[in-house]
Amino acid sequence: MSILTLTIQCPDKKGIIADVTKFIHSNKGNILYIDQYVDRENKAFFMRLESEFASKANGFNTIHLSFEKGPAKKYNMNWSLFQKEQKRRMALFVSKYDHCLYDLLGRYRSGELDVEIPFIYSNHPDLEHIADSFRIQFYHFPVSKSNKIEADEFQLNLLKKYNISFIVLARYMQIISPKIINEFTNKIINIHHSFLPAFPGAKPYHSAFERGVKIIGATSHYITDELDGGPIIEQDVTHVSHTNSINQLVIKGRDLEKIVLARAVKNHISHKVMVFRNKTIIFS
Amino acid sequence: MSILTLTIQCPDKKGIIADVTKFIHSNKGNILYIDQYVDRENKAFFMRLESEFASKANGFNTIHLSFEKGPAKKYNMNWSLFQKEQKRRMALFVSKYDHCLYDLLGRYRSGELDVEIPFIYSNHPDLEHIADSFRIQFYHFPVSKSNKIEADEFQLNLLKKYNISFIVLARYMQIISPKIINEFTNKIINIHHSFLPAFPGAKPYHSAFERGVKIIGATSHYITDELDGGPIIEQDVTHVSHTNSINQLVIKGRDLEKIVLARAVKNHISHKVMVFRNKTIIFS
Amino acid sequence: MSILTLTIQCPDKKGIIADVTKFIHSNKGNILYIDQYVDRENKAFFMRLESEFASKANGFNTIHLSFEKGPAKKYNMNWSLFQKEQKRRMALFVSKYDHCLYDLLGRYRSGELDVEIPFIYSNHPDLEHIADSFRIQFYHFPVSKSNKIEADEFQLNLLKKYNISFIVLARYMQIISPKIINEFTNKIINIHHSFLPAFPGAKPYHSAFERGVKIIGATSHYITDELDGGPIIEQDVTHVSHTNSINQLVIKGRDLEKIVLARAVKNHISHKVMVFRNKTIIFS
Amino acid sequence: MSILTLTIQCPDKKGIIADVTKFIHSNKGNILYIDQYVDRENKAFFMRLESEFASKANGFNTIHLSFEKGPAKKYNMNWSLFQKEQKRRMALFVSKYDHCLYDLLGRYRSGELDVEIPFIYSNHPDLEHIADSFRIQFYHFPVSKSNKIEADEFQLNLLKKYNISFIVLARYMQIISPKIINEFTNKIINIHHSFLPAFPGAKPYHSAFERGVKIIGATSHYITDELDGGPIIEQDVTHVSHTNSINQLVIKGRDLEKIVLARAVKNHISHKVMVFRNKTIIFS
Repeated sequence: MSILTLTIQCPDKKGIIADVTKFIHSNKGNILYIDQYVDRENKAFFMRLESEFASKANGFNTIHLSFEKGPAKKYNMNWSLFQKEQKRRMALFVSKYDHCLYDLLGRYRSGELDVEIPFIYSNHPDLEHIADSFRIQFYHFPVSKSNKIEADEFQLNLLKKYNISFIVLARYMQIISPKIINEFTNKIINIHHSFLPAFPGAKPYHSAFERGVKIIGATSHYITDELDGGPIIEQDVTHVSHTNSINQLVIKGRDLEKIVLARAVKNHISHKVMVFRNKTIIFS
Repeated sequence: MSILTLTIQCPDKKGIIADVTKFIHSNKGNILYIDQYVDRENKAFFMRLESEFASKANGFNTIHLSFEKGPAKKYNMNWSLFQKEQKRRMALFVSKYDHCLYDLLGRYRSGELDVEIPFIYSNHPDLEHIADSFRIQFYHFPVSKSNKIEADEFQLNLLKKYNISFIVLARYMQIISPKIINEFTNKIINIHHSFLPAFPGAKPYHSAFERGVKIIGATSHYITDELDGGPIIEQDVTHVSHTNSINQLVIKGRDLEKIVLARAVKNHISHKVMVFRNKTIIFS
Repeated sequence: MSILTLTIQCPDKKGIIADVTKFIHSNKGNILYIDQYVDRENKAFFMRLESEFASKANGFNTIHLSFEKGPAKKYNMNWSLFQKEQKRRMALFVSKYDHCLYDLLGRYRSGELDVEIPFIYSNHPDLEHIADSFRIQFYHFPVSKSNKIEADEFQLNLLKKYNISFIVLARYMQIISPKIINEFTNKIINIHHSFLPAFPGAKPYHSAFERGVKIIGATSHYITDELDGGPIIEQDVTHVSHTNSINQLVIKGRDLEKIVLARAVKNHISHKVMVFRNKTIIFS
Repeated sequence: MSILTLTIQCPDKKGIIADVTKFIHSNKGNILYIDQYVDRENKAFFMRLESEFASKANGFNTIHLSFEKGPAKKYNMNWSLFQKEQKRRMALFVSKYDHCLYDLLGRYRSGELDVEIPFIYSNHPDLEHIADSFRIQFYHFPVSKSNKIEADEFQLNLLKKYNISFIVLARYMQIISPKIINEFTNKIINIHHSFLPAFPGAKPYHSAFERGVKIIGATSHYITDELDGGPIIEQDVTHVSHTNSINQLVIKGRDLEKIVLARAVKNHISHKVMVFRNKTIIFS
């Protein structure tokens, strides 16, 4: 018994759903879940489909190949096929803040995150003890103006060596190099501590305090070349009041950051996030 | 150009989605939206599908008949087919509170609710002026212990005379007769002013105050024989504090009641609510 | 029996609370409610106090005068004293959207808003029928580039003639003249349909759609010379998804706008909002 | 420099606030924060006051004694005085679930919880490794029907030996003995995984699933003799849908449990919770 997840993006045309479901059916698959969305303005079609196949024999490669030659070609699809058993490999980048790291590792250990975490990377040595206590390899390489190139090199080597599928920036306070962004397009998940597009950049809690907002937020998004401008995956907010100091905003915000980042990571792991024109489609 | 909405409920089997989408395609339809859900425990399948058909000629009746003989029969479906142009006819029952009535009529007039409202019925004369100002027929028939049968008769006659599709109890403070419930199964929408199953029955704000809860809620559900026990369509809540008097809970609650009832009515109108074993499936 | 509300703003010093409460006590008053806040960074003190006085004889004017000579002078206070019986006079400015207007008038009629509403002003004639049905005087004066001065004149005359205490812009789509802003500092309440500071200016729902946010909001603030830059009174948000069209954002947003504006107005009416350095203190 | 927190509960009378603030002032104190509440129906007065005193000499004991003889006696107060420097001693009781434990210890270590945690007690040995990694003493004593008395004895001895101020049940799945409840009245904080009073007792997520609610919640309350019937400190909720399995409710609920319990603990530590007739007053 094998479960496959298929994600599709292509120009909208009549008959796609019928053809794809017919394909699954004729390959002895049972559709467990189907979700679809059409962006009518841009005539773009998106689908996510989970199917169960009785035997492994009629397996992944056969289905992959015949889908390629069949519906994928006919509709000019941008598509992917994933096996549920095959866990994705997630790298964690951190700096000094530990709350998101603890939160993700707690969920990982409880089985809530169905991934492998080959390593944690940081530009500071501070959180090594956490990696140790969860028995995950920790790499430390400082980042400064003078060694930016070496640091990028170091990171890229790690990502390749461990065959990483996607990166989570769990309050990693450094800019990611364009080269890495390019190799991991829509595969680097960041958490920003404001409800974007309000308060991009540094010190959003300070800015929120200055402006006197009654609500603060957190935003998880994919990293692009534009600072805090990538496709938004998840956002949430909490009410604050005039009595809250900046420090209290920071503390309240930590709870948001943890939850918003965790939700984004979970959606990414389940292949529920698709990106189109700098916006996300999030299947349920 | 015609838009049809198809809702399906049947035992879960392989191939339903493929067969249904193939059916639409072979009838020259274009699927605008598909949502589906499988209750694995109970092996029950649910689907909602919106399709666009190019000509009215290959119209409603033809499609209805051939679906009946085709997929519906094959999979033993409990199904319905709706035409978007054909508005449903909604009856409003009220007592003395006007906030939900005003809210629904405001949404109706702004075009947010795609229905016809042939009449408003009340056991009190108080809100007739609102019906008048919206130019909707108002019927008043008092309900007491001694005239319960006549009142039921009066209501049933109205419902039939106006060919009513579904009933909204917008803070109607009377028990609906089993006969009407029976004829309008899953077609009578109530708003209860608590987060059910907490505080069923009378005076939930008083009970919430007594218990000292920090959150109050409102629940919209279909009416069944069991008081406040029907399938829940929508719920929402708001925070309260020790400083709130019962009267302040009532005022805060009114905003919840309006929004929760409106959301439930909108989902019902769009055929997005399906009922199974006293629970709802709400398609998005 | 008379209830007075006292609001105070002054440099923070020792003994203010003791002196003020002693003052109330020695004037035979009973404190019903006290709330206070100190902005330590700016050494600013804020207080709101409700007291009950047994007889009207020892009334408003006596207390006002002796507070002026006593604590107010000692602590260099910026202060106000209000009588509960004396309702404030609220002007409503609207354009063509009716949802906030309906909502406020519904709350007004149900007794939720303890004000007088002498008139509704609009630059369009469309909503006159609503004013009529609530029996409130309606004034229409069109605003264009060429008659801006006359329109300002017209508005100012109305505000003076009716002795208006504060103005609510219930989706009034015009810029208020600096002259009026100046005469009604922190007395003009606006509702902006975004979570400021995100998406200031025109068409925020369009911008929110373009950016692909997962949350939309509404913000009520006092009008200042800076567009959408005034002190924020209240904000709230709701979740949205990729499936929501701009029009659906608009519809969802309407529910937010109504509630956020109503809350701001209620806080203003109860003298619970104090403004300091472009931020608000909101007492509970 | 010393900061004292005073909490007061007494029959409502004129002049309490004036007398108390005068007392602080005449003892050379500066009021940092005052919050007060009157339950008019029950004529009960509640106050919380933070004050800063310049020298330690004019210290805790002097103030305590003179308040006792002064306002406390005059108004028949039920009152307490706390020194900010003196940390409260919190015991943690757990069973097998680790999410609330991790969450509280993370907050503790980050300085968010201003307490001492002398030990963690459990009826199971499973979470000892967490206590170890945070270097907190761990005690394990199994609880069964046959050794209930010994287990109670064991717990009471620990609580006394370590001079515990209050107990947090971080998903401790056992009934607390009446003897301990009696010695720690309004000092045992529990987290229940439902929005009480809905779904008290065992397996609330299962019951929520069965009933088909659209919202699940968590409730933190003080333990009393009545199961899940004690004064509610904090509640929060999250939306769920028909697609969520019981297991998904459990996972979503964990995030609620952590946050709701943490907020309750923080309010308790800051002496912001007062209990009256099985309800809480929560100062801000």
